[in-house]
Formats: sequence, structure tokens, C-alpha cells
Amino acid sequence: MKLLKYIQLGHGSGGKLTHELINEMFVKHFDNEILRQQGDSALLPMDALSLSSFTSESDVARSFPADSKKLAFTTDAYVVDPVFFPGGNIGTLAVSGTVNDLAVTGAVPLYISAAFILEEGLAFQDLDEIVRTMAETARNAGVSIVTGDTKVVNRGQCDKIFITTTGVGVLESTFEHIASGKRVETGDKIIVNGFVGDHGISILGERESLNFTSPVRSDVSCLNSLIREVTRSFDVHFMRDATRGGVATVLAELAETRNKGIEIHETSVPVRDEVKGICEIFGYDPLYIANEGKVVMVVANEQAEEVLVRLRGHALGRESAIIGVVTGEPAGKVVLNTEIGGQRFLDMLAGEQLPRIC
Amino acid sequence: MKLLKYIQLGHGSGGKLTHELINEMFVKHFDNEILRQQGDSALLPMDALSLSSFTSESDVARSFPADSKKLAFTTDAYVVDPVFFPGGNIGTLAVSGTVNDLAVTGAVPLYISAAFILEEGLAFQDLDEIVRTMAETARNAGVSIVTGDTKVVNRGQCDKIFITTTGVGVLESTFEHIASGKRVETGDKIIVNGFVGDHGISILGERESLNFTSPVRSDVSCLNSLIREVTRSFDVHFMRDATRGGVATVLAELAETRNKGIEIHETSVPVRDEVKGICEIFGYDPLYIANEGKVVMVVANEQAEEVLVRLRGHALGRESAIIGVVTGEPAGKVVLNTEIGGQRFLDMLAGEQLPRIC
Repeated sequence: MKLLKYIQLGHGSGGKLTHELINEMFVKHFDNEILRQQGDSALLPMDALSLSSFTSESDVARSFPADSKKLAFTTDAYVVDPVFFPGGNIGTLAVSGTVNDLAVTGAVPLYISAAFILEEGLAFQDLDEIVRTMAETARNAGVSIVTGDTKVVNRGQCDKIFITTTGVGVLESTFEHIASGKRVETGDKIIVNGFVGDHGISILGERESLNFTSPVRSDVSCLNSLIREVTRSFDVHFMRDATRGGVATVLAELAETRNKGIEIHETSVPVRDEVKGICEIFGYDPLYIANEGKVVMVVANEQAEEVLVRLRGHALGRESAIIGVVTGEPAGKVVLNTEIGGQRFLDMLAGEQLPRIC
Repeated sequence: MKLLKYIQLGHGSGGKLTHELINEMFVKHFDNEILRQQGDSALLPMDALSLSSFTSESDVARSFPADSKKLAFTTDAYVVDPVFFPGGNIGTLAVSGTVNDLAVTGAVPLYISAAFILEEGLAFQDLDEIVRTMAETARNAGVSIVTGDTKVVNRGQCDKIFITTTGVGVLESTFEHIASGKRVETGDKIIVNGFVGDHGISILGERESLNFTSPVRSDVSCLNSLIREVTRSFDVHFMRDATRGGVATVLAELAETRNKGIEIHETSVPVRDEVKGICEIFGYDPLYIANEGKVVMVVANEQAEEVLVRLRGHALGRESAIIGVVTGEPAGKVVLNTEIGGQRFLDMLAGEQLPRIC
């Protein structure tokens, strides 16, 4: 890649430019074994953490046990605009997003930290509502917000409020393959737990003051209980939450890293009529729209129907659907069988569709 | 407290308003046992993390072992303006600050996450320099940056770059008393590891384009090796890094929480002549100026001289000094014996002295 001279919005899209920035800047400089895995959470050796003899990280690395329990560790900055939107706010998003990043690796989320950057002049009432709903979201998900930080910048030097949450959870070794998808095989089914695109369209609607008869609500929610419901009974080969870049970007990444083909049937993808309509007007593809309560799961063909039943039995999975299948060819590519009978490739999101979506 | 209607810069000062905001907003809503400790790092039960049976945080709480090793967990948002300053930049600050927050609790810092909020248009060259020096700082401190996130906001919606770092370390149970200072006793000595106020004055100088003959360099540095040097040989009763709010705020907090008196001798506090001069011009007190490489230690009277020798043997402690003593009276107060022979109380920083200092 030739790095551009200046940061563009697309570098925060979760798509191609973000990947280039991560690889050619962060991974290059911060270089270490754990970072190189590039999962939604970093996986830290637990047994090593318990040793009393080490004095630095290099000692920990030496005593890294091959097959032990691990600590999952993840961080995300939230800059969503507007701060309040139908179905949630920046605070509920900040808690859910971090809980989900831990949960999709197969970890049990336990503790969260929250760092606030506040703009001078932010209304206390708004901050109070954000903090109150964060607390509620955390409680419902069974996690504790245990530490934090507050900075205030002068008026005009940030946009109302930014929140960075970092999460810690525990990953049993039986789930360690999930993040990398190394057990993904030809014939596996692709499942999503409901309507895609709700979060992105909710933000768009609020931002553009679109007059929906009934506004699309963000799907922001903590998926850890839904995911646990599946992982404790079934063998999930891969999971990831489809946030920035949407379902398509998750699948494109998986196809590329595993060098498998993926075939998706557009008619099988659950999309609300309102979302479909708005996407048509704006020229968006729902498969690239951000979600904040959707997980893409890959499971063995013979377990797929049972997983579907289990998901549909959970409040956050009523509209779950099998949307596609893993194929051998074309290796590294995602093929979409369109509604009108055509076929096209789904690549990672290029550029920035809708900035500050989360 | 009657909460003001809008967020003020002082809410990010690390002083009185910050404390009020934390107690009446964050602690109120997020309420839990770990958060209520309010140390520089949250202390998470390690043995509990290793249990395989729990499914949520409430189970962990139930199995909380009283006297085991703990995981230290801390987060800080960095918004320093300017981004580059004599002696460091926002990146080296973000790594050092989080390493130090872990180290002052007595923990061994191990892993760091970094979440970046970038302004569209930020020069790649600047970002590259920040990331490169972060990596270098982390390597020198023996910690690994293992996960991260990047968001980009439109031009004008943040100020160049904000970085939130979160750190994880391990705390042996023998050091668990340090953060709370519960072993602090009358007669204990107060030690600081060198010149105070360098960081704040360095930022001020850069921001106001003051023409120093030789600019004051920030003291930003990772203190974990210096601290380890002391904690492995001596019984430290209390430690905290004196960042926002300065040495005075650390001492005022300690005096209040332990209900002890603290007596400081102004002539014993190491302050560079340049810093003293600038403070006089601007009407600042060096004891309230932010540091990013200074730790306040409280040790037993009979160990104080030996600790001093040990500190002075380390590159980051050459100018260490005993600056005061813990007294019985006046309980809860810090008394400063001034250079000209007077006495005055040192309270927590009220309002905001210098916004965006870190």
C-alpha cells in the first residue's frame, strides 16, 4: 500500500483502509504475537498471569502455556453522532459493543472500564442519562464497570462526548478456535441472528431527520447470553459481530483469511422493509450497513437447523436465518446470489459509507 | 453537591470537581464493590477469573477469594494539547500514564490496549511518529500493546488525536494495601522521586510559545522499574503518581481518606529554577502542577533514608527527596511550611489550572 499523506474518514470505516492502517502502522510498530492474531479481542495467557516469578512481559511469553484458559481483552472508542438515537445512545453502544467483542471470541465478559472525553458545556442531564443507561446495560449483561477516567476538552475540541470502553473476560480453551475460524469447512452454514442494517439506518434517519412513519430502531444489544446459549450446546466454527462494514465485510474477511469461498443468498438475508426502502433511496447495500446486535455464526451443516431453533428461542434471535454456505471455490471470495437471479462478489467495504456510526 | 447544569473544564482537572463528578455520577450509577475502592487501578480477583464454573460476574463475586493474587485494570483518555511537546508526545504519555497507574498500585504492568480517535486530515507522518514512540516506550517498560481500535471523525470534530490506553497487570497480595494507604502511620515519611511540575510547565511553555533559553522538558516516563526497585526491598505504605492536580492533590486526598495530618516543607520539594520562575509569573504553585513521571511514596520513618538511596540510584530518581512527614494533627489536612517561614493548608486542586494537560 502507498499510505496516503493524511488520515481520511475511510480509515475509520472498518473496511479496506482501516485494515491497511492497522497492518502498515499499528501492527508494524507494536509488533507482537498476540496483536498479530487480530481477533476482536486479544487473548492473554491466564496461567502465565498467575505465575509469581515473572517480572516483565518477556518472562510471561516464555512461560506461555499452549492449552490453558485465557484472558480476553478488547477496546473500542465510540464517537457515534448523534449521541442519542432510536433504540439507544453512545453509552449503551459503548457497553454492548465491548461485551459483544468479548462474547464473539467465545469469552465470558466480566469487567469493563470506561474513559470519557467530554466537551465543555455538555448538559449534565444528557451525561446522567448516558451513564444511567450504561449501568443498566452492564447490569443486564452481567458485567461490572469497575474503573474509568474523565477528561474535559474546551468547547469545539470534541463533539459532545466520546467514550472508550475496554473489556476483560475469560475464554475457555475449548472456544479458542472460534475467533480465527480455523475449523471452518466447506459445507458449513452461515447464520445471522436477525434483521441486518437496523443500527446504521437508525443513525442515518436521526442524522438526516428523515420522516419515517415509525423510525427504525438501532439493534444495539449485548449478545453474550444469546451466544452462550449456542456455544454451550453446539460447536461454533466462527463468530464475529457485524458492526462497521456490515455482514459483507465480516464474510469477506473470513473468506480471505481461511481461503474459502462463501455463497450468500440475498433473499435469505433478513432485512426490514423500511431498511430496504431507505437503502434503495440512498444507494446502500444492507449487507454493508453497520449492526450493533448482530452476530455472524458459522456452524457445521448438520448442526445448522438446531442452532437456528436455539437462536430463535432467544429474544435477540427471533428472526435468525441461515443466509449462506461455505464453499471450496472461488477461494477467498464471497459470492452473492442476488434477488433478481444474478451473481456478484462481495468485497470488504471500501471507503467510508457513513462516518461516526458507532 | 448541587450538580452544575453543564460540564466545565474543572470536571476534568483531577481535583475537587472531578471527585464530585465521579462520586455523584459514575459511582452512583455504576455502583459496585470494585469501583468503590477508587484506586488508580481496579483490582480484579484472579482466582475467581480462573474458575470454570461461573457464567456471569455475580458468580465471580460470590467466589471472591479474600487473599489471592489480583488483576490490576486501569484506563485513561489522553487529550493533551499540543500533541508534541518537549520530552514526549501524546503517545508516549498514553503508554507511560497507564503503566504508571498500574505500577503505583504495586502491580506488574503487562498488557496495554490503545484506542485512537483521529481527526480527518491528521498527517500520517505525525501519526507514525506517535505510534512508533508508543511502541518504543512500551518495549522499554516491558509491556506489550496487544489490541486496539481506530475511529476517524470529521475535520473539526476532535482535536487532531485522542488516545485511550487501558492496562492490565498482576498484583501480588503482599502489595494490596498500597493503593488505599491503610498502613500509613504517624511518623511516616513522604518521598517524591525528583523535580515536580516539569510536565505541566513543558505543556504551558509549548502552548504559549514561551521563549525559554532551554525549554523545560516533560518528565513523562514509565516508573515501573523504579517502583519495582523499591517495592521488592522495602515496605511501601502508599504510592500514587502525581499527575493532574499535582503532588498537593495526591497528599490532600491521602490526608482526607486516612484522616491523618501531613506536613510538607516547601524548601525540601525539588523544583527546577525555570519551573519556579514560570510559576511565579503565572501565579501557579509547583505543587499543583501536573507531572507524568513522578510518584509520591509514603514509607516508614526508619526505612526512609534507605529508600531515598535506592531511588537516587535509579536514572528516574536522581533528585529524589523526602519532602514531609505524616502527623496525627491536624487530621485530614496537609500543612505546607513555606519558604518564608509561614504555614498554609494545601487543599485539592479546585477548578482547572491548565486544561488538556494530559
